[in-house]
Amino acid sequence: MKRHCQELCPHFQLAMEILAKPWNGLLIAALADGPARFSELLERLTTIGDRMLSERLKDLQRAGLVQRHVLPGPPVRVAYELTAAGHGFREVYDAIGRWGQTLGVPPEGE
Amino acid sequence: MKRHCQELCPHFQLAMEILAKPWNGLLIAALADGPARFSELLERLTTIGDRMLSERLKDLQRAGLVQRHVLPGPPVRVAYELTAAGHGFREVYDAIGRWGQTLGVPPEGE
Repeated sequence: MKRHCQELCPHFQLAMEILAKPWNGLLIAALADGPARFSELLERLTTIGDRMLSERLKDLQRAGLVQRHVLPGPPVRVAYELTAAGHGFREVYDAIGRWGQTLGVPPEGE
Repeated sequence: MKRHCQELCPHFQLAMEILAKPWNGLLIAALADGPARFSELLERLTTIGDRMLSERLKDLQRAGLVQRHVLPGPPVRVAYELTAAGHGFREVYDAIGRWGQTLGVPPEGE
């Protein structure tokens, strides 16, 4: 663990700072389908609110995982797209999902 | 994403409920070296406090990731060990760490 930790711990911690925030993981996963407009993301992530989505998109842009594109109009439109690092999250998402399958079913009401 | 999400989303969410709590990921990683006593875990995770470690160990026992063993004495001693599901976390830890390496260096002072 110690040697392993020296190599990966800081990177694990950095990645977890992003993933530990609500919605970030699912938002990156939702963008893996391709670029989307704000309203399309609201549909893909059915229960997220406008304000939360807006904050998380800013987070992910700061972290270099999402790019914002202005599409020429009229009307001018904005789309969000994963960067290469954002696309690299797919491996993490799959690994977490597979591990989650071994954890059993969450108790009702929690 | 939609089909993918139907398969993996609930498991991703369940896993993230555990991982999003501070220390849980690093604590599972620290136990990957083998069973450890409470005091040994305090040493392995240099900056964790007694109370936080105690709470996180209870969390991980409830989630079925850690088992508590009472070693016959005297003196009676207690050790903590990963379950099979706990050991399965290694793949996730490695995937998150590799992805973290693509995210660049965290800014100083954050």
